[in-house]
Amino acid sequence: MSSPTYELIYWPGIPGRGEFIRLVLEEAGVEYKDTAVVDPGAAAQNVAVQIDSSNTGDGNNPPPFAPPILRHGDLLISQTPNILLYLATRHGLAPKEDSPGFYHLNALALTVLDGLSNEAHDTHHPIAVSEYYEDQKEESKRRAADYIKNRIPKFLGYFERVIKGKKSGDGPWLYGGNLTYADLVLFQGIDGIKYAFPNAVGKLEASGKYANVFKLHQAVKDRPRIKEYLTSKRRQPFGLGLYRHYPELDSK
Amino acid sequence: MSSPTYELIYWPGIPGRGEFIRLVLEEAGVEYKDTAVVDPGAAAQNVAVQIDSSNTGDGNNPPPFAPPILRHGDLLISQTPNILLYLATRHGLAPKEDSPGFYHLNALALTVLDGLSNEAHDTHHPIAVSEYYEDQKEESKRRAADYIKNRIPKFLGYFERVIKGKKSGDGPWLYGGNLTYADLVLFQGIDGIKYAFPNAVGKLEASGKYANVFKLHQAVKDRPRIKEYLTSKRRQPFGLGLYRHYPELDSK
Repeated sequence: MSSPTYELIYWPGIPGRGEFIRLVLEEAGVEYKDTAVVDPGAAAQNVAVQIDSSNTGDGNNPPPFAPPILRHGDLLISQTPNILLYLATRHGLAPKEDSPGFYHLNALALTVLDGLSNEAHDTHHPIAVSEYYEDQKEESKRRAADYIKNRIPKFLGYFERVIKGKKSGDGPWLYGGNLTYADLVLFQGIDGIKYAFPNAVGKLEASGKYANVFKLHQAVKDRPRIKEYLTSKRRQPFGLGLYRHYPELDSK
Repeated sequence: MSSPTYELIYWPGIPGRGEFIRLVLEEAGVEYKDTAVVDPGAAAQNVAVQIDSSNTGDGNNPPPFAPPILRHGDLLISQTPNILLYLATRHGLAPKEDSPGFYHLNALALTVLDGLSNEAHDTHHPIAVSEYYEDQKEESKRRAADYIKNRIPKFLGYFERVIKGKKSGDGPWLYGGNLTYADLVLFQGIDGIKYAFPNAVGKLEASGKYANVFKLHQAVKDRPRIKEYLTSKRRQPFGLGLYRHYPELDSK
């Protein structure tokens, strides 16, 4: 057996930001080495070497700032939206580079990652990533309340408009009538906030205002390869990562 | 006179995230329409139409989530790092798409924007973008203290390593021995935190630990077109935008 073309370098034990990348690789049916899943003991060390404060990169690559990191031969690529662009164009989940669709999809993916990933993270770490949640719990309550009241509806409303717009084409998807990586990214963002804020997101879903967004979430879930992946051991459960469920931060 | 190829759609009165894009256009010597500067009264309305909660885009474009937005003919492109990629590859400030350099520079630009733009913003709005600074001042003090102590040194240390690494090549730049748009983005990030936290960043500069980063900042400033731009009326002063100077958030 030949070794897989791609290696995902990421923290073990959480789906985290690595999960956006896994979904693209799984939907594309591409073989990849995922050390966090197959050898968790080695994964943390793999990450540590890359982000060590003495690493200045090599003749092919600048040092990466943080994981996830994708290794493809001699090439190392970091930053989640950047890895997604790289993989999606190579595996039929985004139009070719130098096309409007390439840039439109990048904007959609960046918006999901800003609103439903980075901002979701900041609800439990509004003050300092280096401190425990417990030491910023009161601030988290204020930030999560604003996130639930103002930010989640703003982002869901935005993606609802994208799906309703002409450029989304027919069917459940965000862009051009076909499944793209932006749909996979939105799926994971929705899945994450459903886990973190089941009451709040449940109410928004029940309101019917964002019906197309939740239909898209289900449509991705029903893709044969994604369906198989989600029930496999490769899909790690949410926990104390990017998306966290603290009942005191959710709606009643 | 023909009208400029590009139009920048952005809020008037602040350099904000639009400034990263202006620097690329200025260094490239490309003519562009900047309504925020030439007709501030019309600029807010231009933005409002684009991000209105009834806008579903058109047959060419999904709706944009937020400014800055670049108009190029019938094409609308949003999200700062995305607009930067689009312009830089077209105007000699990034290698061609589908090359390692395209993805490496995107990672560097995304890292500056995360660390020296988004996180700098969050020091004065750690709880809610919809609330006044004055209503989240205590939380801002905690967040700014962490930003100054942990985050700024982490990001400056990272870019110092990038410049010291093999892949940066000769000279003051981040990548491949040539000025790229990532250098312009880093320049603006450093310029912003120098404005916001003059004492804290002054001390870090004086320490000599990040000498290459501050040299790069100066080298960008000395580029003939950038030098002319910075003293022109097109360069708007910092104020109550992305980068804010509140003495109570800075070091003593």
